[in-house]
Amino acid sequence: MPKWVYGFGAGGAEGSADKRNLLGGKGANLAEMSNLGLPVPPGFTITTEVCTHYYGNGEAYPGGLQDEVNVALRSLESELGATFGDAGNPLLVSVRSGARVSMPGMMDTVLNLGLNDETVRGLSAQSNDERFAYDSYRRFIQMYGDVVMGIDHYSFEDALARQKEDAGVELDTELSAEDWKAVVAAYKDIVQAELGKPFPQDPQEQLWGAVGAVFSSWMNQRAITYRRLHGISGDWGTAVNVQAMVFGNMGDDCATGVGFTRDPSTGENIFYGEYLANAQGEDVVAGIRTPQPLSRNGQQDASGLPSMEELLPDMYAQLADIRDVLEAHYKDMQDIEFTVQKGKLFMLQTRSGKRTAPASVRIAVEMADQGLITEDEAVLRVDAAQLDQLLHPTLDPDAEKVLFARGLPASPGAAHGRVVLTADKAEQWADEGQRVILVRTETSPEDIHGMHAAAGILTSRGGMTSHAAVVARGMGRPCVVGAADLSIDMERSVVLAGGQELREGDLVTVDGGSGEVIIGEVPTREPELSEHFDRLMGWADRIRRMGVRANAETPADVKTALSFGAEGIGLCRTEHMFFEPGRIVDVRRMILAEDADGRRAALNELLPHQRSDFLAIFRLMGGRPVTIRLLDPPLHEFLPHGAEEIADVAKAAGLTPEAVRQRALRLSESNPMLGHRGCRLGITAPEIYEMQARAIFEAALEASEGGGAPVTPEVMVPLVMTRVELDLIKARIDKVAEDVAAEKGRSVDYLVGTMIELPRAALCADEIAESAAFFSFGTNDLTQTTFGISRDDAGGFIGEYERAGILAVDPFVSLDTSGVGALINIAVGKGRAARPDIKLGICGEHGGEPNSVAFFENAGLGYVSCSPYRVPIARLAAAQAVLRR
Amino acid sequence: MPKWVYGFGAGGAEGSADKRNLLGGKGANLAEMSNLGLPVPPGFTITTEVCTHYYGNGEAYPGGLQDEVNVALRSLESELGATFGDAGNPLLVSVRSGARVSMPGMMDTVLNLGLNDETVRGLSAQSNDERFAYDSYRRFIQMYGDVVMGIDHYSFEDALARQKEDAGVELDTELSAEDWKAVVAAYKDIVQAELGKPFPQDPQEQLWGAVGAVFSSWMNQRAITYRRLHGISGDWGTAVNVQAMVFGNMGDDCATGVGFTRDPSTGENIFYGEYLANAQGEDVVAGIRTPQPLSRNGQQDASGLPSMEELLPDMYAQLADIRDVLEAHYKDMQDIEFTVQKGKLFMLQTRSGKRTAPASVRIAVEMADQGLITEDEAVLRVDAAQLDQLLHPTLDPDAEKVLFARGLPASPGAAHGRVVLTADKAEQWADEGQRVILVRTETSPEDIHGMHAAAGILTSRGGMTSHAAVVARGMGRPCVVGAADLSIDMERSVVLAGGQELREGDLVTVDGGSGEVIIGEVPTREPELSEHFDRLMGWADRIRRMGVRANAETPADVKTALSFGAEGIGLCRTEHMFFEPGRIVDVRRMILAEDADGRRAALNELLPHQRSDFLAIFRLMGGRPVTIRLLDPPLHEFLPHGAEEIADVAKAAGLTPEAVRQRALRLSESNPMLGHRGCRLGITAPEIYEMQARAIFEAALEASEGGGAPVTPEVMVPLVMTRVELDLIKARIDKVAEDVAAEKGRSVDYLVGTMIELPRAALCADEIAESAAFFSFGTNDLTQTTFGISRDDAGGFIGEYERAGILAVDPFVSLDTSGVGALINIAVGKGRAARPDIKLGICGEHGGEPNSVAFFENAGLGYVSCSPYRVPIARLAAAQAVLRR
Repeated sequence: MPKWVYGFGAGGAEGSADKRNLLGGKGANLAEMSNLGLPVPPGFTITTEVCTHYYGNGEAYPGGLQDEVNVALRSLESELGATFGDAGNPLLVSVRSGARVSMPGMMDTVLNLGLNDETVRGLSAQSNDERFAYDSYRRFIQMYGDVVMGIDHYSFEDALARQKEDAGVELDTELSAEDWKAVVAAYKDIVQAELGKPFPQDPQEQLWGAVGAVFSSWMNQRAITYRRLHGISGDWGTAVNVQAMVFGNMGDDCATGVGFTRDPSTGENIFYGEYLANAQGEDVVAGIRTPQPLSRNGQQDASGLPSMEELLPDMYAQLADIRDVLEAHYKDMQDIEFTVQKGKLFMLQTRSGKRTAPASVRIAVEMADQGLITEDEAVLRVDAAQLDQLLHPTLDPDAEKVLFARGLPASPGAAHGRVVLTADKAEQWADEGQRVILVRTETSPEDIHGMHAAAGILTSRGGMTSHAAVVARGMGRPCVVGAADLSIDMERSVVLAGGQELREGDLVTVDGGSGEVIIGEVPTREPELSEHFDRLMGWADRIRRMGVRANAETPADVKTALSFGAEGIGLCRTEHMFFEPGRIVDVRRMILAEDADGRRAALNELLPHQRSDFLAIFRLMGGRPVTIRLLDPPLHEFLPHGAEEIADVAKAAGLTPEAVRQRALRLSESNPMLGHRGCRLGITAPEIYEMQARAIFEAALEASEGGGAPVTPEVMVPLVMTRVELDLIKARIDKVAEDVAAEKGRSVDYLVGTMIELPRAALCADEIAESAAFFSFGTNDLTQTTFGISRDDAGGFIGEYERAGILAVDPFVSLDTSGVGALINIAVGKGRAARPDIKLGICGEHGGEPNSVAFFENAGLGYVSCSPYRVPIARLAAAQAVLRR
Repeated sequence: MPKWVYGFGAGGAEGSADKRNLLGGKGANLAEMSNLGLPVPPGFTITTEVCTHYYGNGEAYPGGLQDEVNVALRSLESELGATFGDAGNPLLVSVRSGARVSMPGMMDTVLNLGLNDETVRGLSAQSNDERFAYDSYRRFIQMYGDVVMGIDHYSFEDALARQKEDAGVELDTELSAEDWKAVVAAYKDIVQAELGKPFPQDPQEQLWGAVGAVFSSWMNQRAITYRRLHGISGDWGTAVNVQAMVFGNMGDDCATGVGFTRDPSTGENIFYGEYLANAQGEDVVAGIRTPQPLSRNGQQDASGLPSMEELLPDMYAQLADIRDVLEAHYKDMQDIEFTVQKGKLFMLQTRSGKRTAPASVRIAVEMADQGLITEDEAVLRVDAAQLDQLLHPTLDPDAEKVLFARGLPASPGAAHGRVVLTADKAEQWADEGQRVILVRTETSPEDIHGMHAAAGILTSRGGMTSHAAVVARGMGRPCVVGAADLSIDMERSVVLAGGQELREGDLVTVDGGSGEVIIGEVPTREPELSEHFDRLMGWADRIRRMGVRANAETPADVKTALSFGAEGIGLCRTEHMFFEPGRIVDVRRMILAEDADGRRAALNELLPHQRSDFLAIFRLMGGRPVTIRLLDPPLHEFLPHGAEEIADVAKAAGLTPEAVRQRALRLSESNPMLGHRGCRLGITAPEIYEMQARAIFEAALEASEGGGAPVTPEVMVPLVMTRVELDLIKARIDKVAEDVAAEKGRSVDYLVGTMIELPRAALCADEIAESAAFFSFGTNDLTQTTFGISRDDAGGFIGEYERAGILAVDPFVSLDTSGVGALINIAVGKGRAARPDIKLGICGEHGGEPNSVAFFENAGLGYVSCSPYRVPIARLAAAQAVLRR
């Protein structure tokens, strides 16, 4: 017979932190804090197994649950000397959800449960504050009505507004006890009117209603969306925490607050947080009142208000001690909630705190320095994907900026995009390939999908711990909150600030590092990386087995890649070079040529350009490996399209515009992805690859002249599907190498290898390996062909696929290990069997995505190659993959 | 130490037929005939191992070869009482190639070797025929000069023509001994002039020159092409046969001929062949003189000349006896060559004879009836691919035909196409997707690639055993030869006959069954199959394990499929039904609808059509399994294109033409093959599949009413890449089935399964099998995605790929067993592991291709499904696969 209910309290607990799966994160940590002797209001946790049982059995509770809850309630009553439903000395409780993994804002909470027309009088007598008691009661009805009974919260807000109007006041705090009584009466009328039955007066009925609402909310749409986005299983279930109420709103010796044991934005080892005097917990995160800082230190703060350290020094000191206890115990930065009730401190929650990437790095490194964790643990602490935040360019400080508004810098990084005013539109425009900035008064869990789709988030209300700020940091989206002079006119679909106006669809830039909101798109510049970052990367480099290279083809990209620690170039795409002005005309002449001689003449013009491109790269790379992919895209991609371009090309090629148009038409394809491209060009027009090979070899020899490091270029043949293709092309490359060696009197060292980017190449890798010195997995094309999905055309269905949960993870973002991964494993096995020393790498988009990097580590690849900005992510992920094996 | 040379002759041989790999087909059969006591001119075979050694060692002969050849020559000399190079009594030999597999016309032959200025006088004295001796000498110089020394044969022909002019005669036979001496002198001058050295007089030098030429010809371009087209390995090498000369041109008691032991065109058990009196062997097949028939029987013959049976009855009787010996010994129809020298018969060659498909079937069945072979052997005897010839429509006899010319019916079947006059153009136009008829005066091995590319072949010269006829039968190309009143004007690119003219590019039809050449494209009708065919198919059905179904969706196709023995429908494509007039408007309305309701309204109009389509098919199939694929192609394929169509649709849908155009534009895709199609449509627009499922279930219930056979439709979901897609769609199909059952009061039996046509589906087949009752491999799309080749776009490179030997076999014709086959094996293994009773079939083009069918048998599939006309091929191939396991 399982145990369904676990008690906790100041004297200790039945559970502990290691029972997280059973008790949920919140419940396990409440138990753990109880065991640490911290002041936790007593309560009990209904386990996640009850939730699983509930959904596995037609939404019925297990037998025995009711009895266990009653026993736990009795124990609570005796501990507190109060009785549930007692008119004189009522026990009031909060009911909160708590899943295994923190799902902020996704689940529902009910406070002040146990209040009714009788017990409110008891609370009034006990607190000696009738105003407080009826305010609590109306809060309870409002919350319970909304969350448990499904009544639109606007109904309650309207009634409150009417009462304020009647009373002739503007602020809630100006309402009297009698006003609150009237509000309570109005709220009860709303419930009666909406549901045809009165607000429940029986505390037991209230309790089970709230418990049922928590379980129901586990399967509501926004919870399902959150789980899908975060890879959380629906089978885990949520626990329910029932806890004695403590009140931060019983007067000026009361307060409630949230805090982080270190600065979640910078990672600095300061006590960081916010509190509100005379308030209940929900008031802080709701972003309605602007909270005050916890401590006096350098916390970035827009309020200018005095801190808790100054105003409530005793309470602050106690809290600071608890902070030390928690960090020493959990060995990680904690996110805490507390309440001060009439001078007594209560801890309501602790959990591992969300943090920005810079904070994550700094906290990990400094905790290792403090001896709290090891270097290996520090490397594992930082979410590699989150590093992306550090590595993206920031706004160019010298750029001219037209400021639109200013808010709190809630999540770092700069982003530009088109203004959108609803989450649905954000998703829709993003599906259509637009970059969007979601602009809202404040965000709520209903906006999660739009926040995910947006490149950046901007709100006019809320603080650093508001919903928008917390969620944006978790998602790594640049975010500015509380831009107070900004207002949104939904009717006209415009955003107004300081007399300026942005329409939906206009470009805007948000700088989550400074809090600035700027009109239009602002140029950016390279990020500067901290000393903490460098040290963490050093530890990662010591640990990792795989090499990390970059995909780069311009000197600028190559420099960026080197600055981020790239050890080579894994993919130098030669076609990018073809598009440059001054070359494209010769490229087009080459394509329009009727025969090999004509092509060769045009290619001779291109040769010096390609040679100098490669020379520049070889010199920058100073002998590090460089893998150059021969021409890949279909030729018609290079052809002119508009009438003017066609006329220009016709003139240069000595043809009529009509002839050029005809040639372009002949080259056009039904499915260019699967058409005449890659090494198929090398087979049908050998002159192209011969020119490219010559450019590579001549550049390699020139680079090593005069003391330059010797270069061993890796010549990569794309889109190979059979060994014969590679054999034919390799023979021609070898011939070019011989010719160049004969002309220059020096031989070239080089390797010829191939992309594995077609399923057949993977399946026949043993044959191909006999001719290939290396394989580089082109996971973009391999994903397209394995799934039969063209990325260009996925827009028509991919949105629906994600909504329906068909593709839990986008296979173009994170490697599909069951399908594409299976092909990679086959190719690695067969390739090694045929050529034990074959070099194996990957150069698709997945090379910089941590889960994919872990797969490549386990598959035994030699290196990953990714975009320059993702090199540090790959370095860290590669180290983590080693530690996690 | 290997033995390099094997002797043979009338007294027996060192080799035998089972040494085919070592001695080549010709050498092995010469040895076998010698062992059978047949009159074979003595000689010896230089083994294929010498050829392999030659190419493996820089074109050098193995040590010891020269000695072995000399010993064999000495033995030949002593047997014949003649001496190589002896002026008085010279030994003359032929030198012929002979590979393991017959490669007709591909390798070079030299006759009369051993003749020089001295020995020609000995031959003259011996034969008492100076004219014959010098004619033989000039033939030798001409052949040797062409084949061994590489002198253009036109030079010799010109010299001969000049001599005829000088002598004032028209025919070779009118030239005197002195004339031939003058020709010999002129030929020798040509050699001296072209090569700067005299024609070799030393018979040893002549012999080794010829042997070297045979080995060299193994690697000439046309041999390489032939091997590529026929899947023959270049490593096999050729043997060289050196054999004492016998002369069919020593006078009127001499003759030479070729024959088949049965009619190679019909298979009738008659002695079929042609001969020429007073001629050398090359004259018969060269098609220059029109040969006479061997026997008096019903052989189709255009010459009207008397037969050998009548003119040379003794020789004929001997030959007929040998025919019986050979058939009894080889148990197969033989293709023989013989020469009669002064009343003595010599056998020069025997080999398994090429035959048409009807002949192949009839010979196999009749040989089984005769007890020569077993029924199993008979089933193996018929090349399943060749059956195609039997199964294609023939010309509609009632069609109006404008006859252009008439020739010999050399290879059965009817074909139409555009006239092309060169092999290169035939290949080029065919690459561009045209059907072409290759029209030539006569064909030669240089034309092989063009014959392969052509749909039919037409020549103005040559007989039933001419190059064109033999090769066309082997390739299964309809062919008419010897259409004598046809002439070709290459300068004007026209073909003339009887005052009519066809230009290159005009449409023409050839009927290889009747010999008719018809202007334009003639309608065709269904083939009638022989009793032999039915019996052979009966044997095949008894043997085979796999079921054979057809891909069909119209009642006409279904009837054809049933008449060819289909046991079910493996692929009923529902989209074909959408294109029919009266429906396409509703299809387009459905696509243009802005939402699900609009789509549903249009689909309601389509429902009765689809239901009656399915009903007709179910009734015809009488309870046999029918697999229906839900809508597969991208919706934009159904949209109107021209302005008129757009206007029609706009009117019907109540939209502006511009709106229709915009919608079509929005639906267009970069890579529709990899786009929004297949079950992706079923996910994003569920109404479509719901309508189709309803039509299927309602039709199934209706079909079984009133005593109709109960139907269990197999509903097939296309383009599945993950189990979740199938789960979602299956749930909706099940719901429709429940609804229909509730409405009709009877439940429907049905299966839901999926196509495996994406690499990912194959790799994740275990997961998918948990939801799929059956898999049907869609090998067309699976080949496209595995290779990354769009069939629509392959034209730009596939020709070059075939020429370069990169794709020895077109993977869209014969399954690529290493790549696509590997995926099928993975899917079969995983599918069976997850669901042991899963039904497995294949419905791509490969279902009717014999090598692919053999693969599917070995992979353990339950059935293959192919186009109706290929059903018999599949039945036979499936039986052969069982026998060959």
